[in-house]
Amino acid sequence: MRVGIAGCGLIGGSLALALRRGHDVRAYDPAGTGEIAGAARLEDLLAADVIVVATPLSQIVPTLRALAVHSSGTVLMDVGSLKRDVAAFAESAPPSARIVGGHPMAGSTDQGLGAARADLFAGRPFFLVPTARADERAMGIAGDVARAVGAIPTIVSAQEHDRIVAVLSGLPLVVARALARVGADVAAFGGPGYRDATRLAQTPPELADALLMGNAAEVRAALARFRTALDDLEREVG
Amino acid sequence: MRVGIAGCGLIGGSLALALRRGHDVRAYDPAGTGEIAGAARLEDLLAADVIVVATPLSQIVPTLRALAVHSSGTVLMDVGSLKRDVAAFAESAPPSARIVGGHPMAGSTDQGLGAARADLFAGRPFFLVPTARADERAMGIAGDVARAVGAIPTIVSAQEHDRIVAVLSGLPLVVARALARVGADVAAFGGPGYRDATRLAQTPPELADALLMGNAAEVRAALARFRTALDDLEREVG
Repeated sequence: MRVGIAGCGLIGGSLALALRRGHDVRAYDPAGTGEIAGAARLEDLLAADVIVVATPLSQIVPTLRALAVHSSGTVLMDVGSLKRDVAAFAESAPPSARIVGGHPMAGSTDQGLGAARADLFAGRPFFLVPTARADERAMGIAGDVARAVGAIPTIVSAQEHDRIVAVLSGLPLVVARALARVGADVAAFGGPGYRDATRLAQTPPELADALLMGNAAEVRAALARFRTALDDLEREVG
Repeated sequence: MRVGIAGCGLIGGSLALALRRGHDVRAYDPAGTGEIAGAARLEDLLAADVIVVATPLSQIVPTLRALAVHSSGTVLMDVGSLKRDVAAFAESAPPSARIVGGHPMAGSTDQGLGAARADLFAGRPFFLVPTARADERAMGIAGDVARAVGAIPTIVSAQEHDRIVAVLSGLPLVVARALARVGADVAAFGGPGYRDATRLAQTPPELADALLMGNAAEVRAALARFRTALDDLEREVG
């Protein structure tokens, strides 16, 4: 499989390290691709069978748009943390474009190519989201990418995906920030339990804001369920 | 220093392993003391300079009470997670008793002697709480115990201690349980961030309940501050 990777941060870099063990990988990133074979321009990736778009969240739809007009046959697969905007873009994309949403459920509060590692996705779920521009071949290739990095492909709708991510990523992030705010004056005494409970508060702000503001309705719904659970648990405290 | 340890779980066992590197340590636990030198009866520990009471929280005051009547000169130091009951007991203890509250800020969701390790307290804060039955010598010996296990002794009142513990242990525990409840149907997709955020929900229920119900007023106060922080952060989501 010839794979192009657009964006070489933690996720793109880790995908490249994992995929190049068995596939022909070229990456494009304006900030450099480290020891990974680099392409001079984004468009140079179009010779691949599949291009994985692993840019920051705000650049995913613009990058898909730039690629989609020239992408005859090349499958475009993003790996951003939210899927509704990708699904919406696909509906208006050129009819010849092939677009699949993807999201490996792995990560780290460490960011960038320097934190990338080939085993980041091993055994992890890898969401695949069909779009109006996905067909059987495109979904198959996306599944091959997921399996090639050791992950477990799981098909989900864009709506359900963003709901799940609000519960598993958005909500814990807001909660960790609130815990860190309440404990700020005594945090130096905190043990490993407190450290783990507040770790997500260290998520880089631009990534955190994109995850929260780009999924605000679902995050609010998760917060409402969380408040109910908290009220129930407080009653159990006696 | 001759040290007696009453209760050989994670904390008592780890204290014994750390202390026996430089001190004469004997432990008492009805369930056995593993490879640590054992005493046949609780009272056999009274020959020591200091007895560290490391039983489950519900047994700390009863154990202190059993020891206090015979403890002429031997310093009694508990290492439970809450300090108000210990301070209250000390006020009515025999005038000859010497009682100091202690609480090393270290732990693990793994419990029992099998999880004990000599370096559990290395570099960690170790709260020391003066009581109505503490004097300079008793506080000094308690500080020596804390330093001997590699911890950093910090003096705090019983009230302030229980407030801090509500923020650093009680609140994160309730929050982790609420997160786990909201995410129960999708937890299998959770990455390391979600796992860390919900880890404290695995605290053994009897330990968790003792920490929460035994400190209910402070936990409620921490929950109130947490809800305010959550409301503020939700507004920032936009």
